[in-house]
Amino acid sequence: MPEHETIDRSRYRDLLLRRLTVRLLDVPGGFGRFADAVGSTGALIGDIRRVRIEDEHVVRDVDVHVRDRDHLNALVARVSSLENVEVLRVLDHVLEMHLGGKLEVVSRVPLETVSDLLTVYTPGVAQVCQTIADDATKAYTYTHIWNTVAIVTNGTAVLGLGDIGPVAGMPVMEGKGVILRRMVDISPVPILIDSRDPDVIVEVVSHIAPTFGAVQLEDIAAPECFQIEAELSRRLDRVVFHDDQHGTAIVVTAALMTALDRLERDLSDLKVVVNGAGAAGIAITRMLQGAGARNVILCDRAGALYEGRSEHMNAAKEEIAATTNPANEAGSLSDVLRGAHVFVGVSAPDLVTPEMVAGMAPQPVVYALANPVPEIDKRLALAAGAAFATDGRTLNNALAFPGVFRGCLDARAKAITPEMKLAASRAIARQTPSSDLVPNFMDREMHRHVAAAVQQAAIEAGAARTRVPDPGTFERHHTPNEMLAGGRANGDVIEQ
Amino acid sequence: MPEHETIDRSRYRDLLLRRLTVRLLDVPGGFGRFADAVGSTGALIGDIRRVRIEDEHVVRDVDVHVRDRDHLNALVARVSSLENVEVLRVLDHVLEMHLGGKLEVVSRVPLETVSDLLTVYTPGVAQVCQTIADDATKAYTYTHIWNTVAIVTNGTAVLGLGDIGPVAGMPVMEGKGVILRRMVDISPVPILIDSRDPDVIVEVVSHIAPTFGAVQLEDIAAPECFQIEAELSRRLDRVVFHDDQHGTAIVVTAALMTALDRLERDLSDLKVVVNGAGAAGIAITRMLQGAGARNVILCDRAGALYEGRSEHMNAAKEEIAATTNPANEAGSLSDVLRGAHVFVGVSAPDLVTPEMVAGMAPQPVVYALANPVPEIDKRLALAAGAAFATDGRTLNNALAFPGVFRGCLDARAKAITPEMKLAASRAIARQTPSSDLVPNFMDREMHRHVAAAVQQAAIEAGAARTRVPDPGTFERHHTPNEMLAGGRANGDVIEQ
Repeated sequence: MPEHETIDRSRYRDLLLRRLTVRLLDVPGGFGRFADAVGSTGALIGDIRRVRIEDEHVVRDVDVHVRDRDHLNALVARVSSLENVEVLRVLDHVLEMHLGGKLEVVSRVPLETVSDLLTVYTPGVAQVCQTIADDATKAYTYTHIWNTVAIVTNGTAVLGLGDIGPVAGMPVMEGKGVILRRMVDISPVPILIDSRDPDVIVEVVSHIAPTFGAVQLEDIAAPECFQIEAELSRRLDRVVFHDDQHGTAIVVTAALMTALDRLERDLSDLKVVVNGAGAAGIAITRMLQGAGARNVILCDRAGALYEGRSEHMNAAKEEIAATTNPANEAGSLSDVLRGAHVFVGVSAPDLVTPEMVAGMAPQPVVYALANPVPEIDKRLALAAGAAFATDGRTLNNALAFPGVFRGCLDARAKAITPEMKLAASRAIARQTPSSDLVPNFMDREMHRHVAAAVQQAAIEAGAARTRVPDPGTFERHHTPNEMLAGGRANGDVIEQ
Repeated sequence: MPEHETIDRSRYRDLLLRRLTVRLLDVPGGFGRFADAVGSTGALIGDIRRVRIEDEHVVRDVDVHVRDRDHLNALVARVSSLENVEVLRVLDHVLEMHLGGKLEVVSRVPLETVSDLLTVYTPGVAQVCQTIADDATKAYTYTHIWNTVAIVTNGTAVLGLGDIGPVAGMPVMEGKGVILRRMVDISPVPILIDSRDPDVIVEVVSHIAPTFGAVQLEDIAAPECFQIEAELSRRLDRVVFHDDQHGTAIVVTAALMTALDRLERDLSDLKVVVNGAGAAGIAITRMLQGAGARNVILCDRAGALYEGRSEHMNAAKEEIAATTNPANEAGSLSDVLRGAHVFVGVSAPDLVTPEMVAGMAPQPVVYALANPVPEIDKRLALAAGAAFATDGRTLNNALAFPGVFRGCLDARAKAITPEMKLAASRAIARQTPSSDLVPNFMDREMHRHVAAAVQQAAIEAGAARTRVPDPGTFERHHTPNEMLAGGRANGDVIEQ
């Protein structure tokens, strides 16, 4: 019976998450019988919470992962058939969490009395405007500009969904925003642009850039994303960071530093094959070169990129081909993978076979990041001899971008340099427990360390407006109430 | 001695607000002696708070209004000379309140467990994006777009400060935002545009408009503001509202409805003179015509506008001249003011004399809104025979725009019509206590009534996307935690 076939944990992305509200007899073993019944249908159990205790019963919210609607219905039928088990509600927890959106803009100051109004609005506010008009740097202190990041998309490459437009992409922008706020106390501002024209996007972002401390480009299709990032970086005096490129590159580089450190190997001696010549693949290639790799081969659908290749080329690929693949190896992915020490995939499902891994150099590193289904299942790669193997669920760019932006804002950075990105990779590698390839995303301290490293690198690279690390910037935004309690005030506001 | 000259309450705008932290002997009469000393220097006392109680002493924060630095120093010297009074600190409370800015963007959902991450970010979020891609109206439910208002400025006409640029204008945008959040639970999003070119501003706002539920234009100089608002209103399928024009017009119209109701007069029978042909003056003129006024005369520096006048004209003035001043009266302000029943000033200080008020029709209404100093002090106007007189501190457009935007968002309005603006004026007039000309700004219920009236008017005008009032929209954003507690879920998220 299909509903008894156990589901595959490695396919979480493909599963439905639902929240069952159930009434159970509150006796020892009562929940165990229920959990057994859930398991017997092949479903996985997630979080479990008690929501109400009654005379003889307890009401619980139970999150379950199921394959599909049929599986869900079979599960509900099965547990409902148990004695003393009542299913009160089946909720789509994902949609529920998104009701009304995931972000909101709030006030950091009170508006309770007429004194408050005279202070935060006219006439008081005029004094603050004049202060900034007289000294533009006061905007760092008296506006929220330098704690904000614009998250800009045109919705042309949203997750694995493709070109669904900016409005349908908003939940992703808000999701990135939740991460920036919860992990590093940044105010994220999604900006949706209804244009596919790179020139329009550059114009629009350039004109509103004074509003924000930095710009995160998100889910914009290649090759337009390269042109947009390059032109905006040229025009603006603040950080422009395309997360799909550099966030992924920073995390892959960090995980490779960790693996090679444990293998006691030097990146500069190794043959690295990157498959997928999109935004991420090109950024990873460039960053690995910056980290010391001398023999990187980038592959696309047509196989290895080499100088002089004619088919399926574009400006970005031409440029890459000129600096990679020193031996000018031609051929398919499986051809050039032979003897390689490192494989990084940002391409498509199941392109790499165990045989291909077995044909690599001894103890290869296999990072198969295709989304949602990797180039090769990491368990197959390990079985085929990989020393380290993982996929995109583990090497998540959410490990990088929060600390990167916090560090850039704290430095009031004019730009982000290769050194700053490498500093982020090194910090992530330093924060990685010996049991894992990358740190735990939920660890706020990890993100703070990345931020400090990026800020320091910005200062050393001359990309910072601050000469010394300024914890105040973070702290000020981190503890507004304390700040506003009057206990702390900076030089500007004390007189005498 | 100048420091003993009492300061003028009607000049709050010109005063410095400072917070003294003082240690006083905590005995009956102890504070009275301190307060007497403050008063003896001619200063006003604002809020007073106890911040610390010590063995024999109490430490208080005392807000004071002083004329200038000299006055402040004289005040500190005077109270410091008292026995058992110690001034610990003098704080610029206004700047302190602005430290780090007045707004921040926060998450409405938790990010505590890996389950949270799987829900608000990938893979969970993909389901929400797909839901919106399949049905665009789901963006109302699953993004924060329709609880946001973009507050757009280029900083060319900030308060009375003029063209100080967008960044120096940010404190005002944040201040408007504080009001929208605190009064009607809207998420305000300041957008600074670094251009004086109306075409550029229209292009930029048009391309980012899908991000927001409505657009508030703010502190943009005339005449560009007319062109920008008209063109954006034509292009966008959502509300575009220039507060400096229509916010003021709605409040003036409301206060005039109240005064004429008490005088038992009908606007259509009266001669109304509006002085100041800028953004506000033209909007007030048009709105009063919409409210039934048949004889409005608009004046500028060159005197009355009339059809065929040649000097100091522009497109907006030509248009107005054609529909106002039916008797084609020429002459100065004082000429046309003779026999008028209503004066509305949005021009410059002290342009109206008591004699001019005395020359108006019996029991005239005089609203002198010039900022910071009115056309005539309301006490002088009343002494000269005005039945009602007030200034810009009382007729504050902050009475209108919060409810207007809340109502437009709740209606998911495609545009704002004259009927919707008049509905706002009527609601404000209805909410006005018999003792005053306008309601109390701090009264959230008043703003809610304005919102309900605007939403209803939008539905009747066919400008709403909702067919019936939707308290849910407000409530959903008003109580996110309750909403997310799982106790309430809408039809989309319940399955079976």
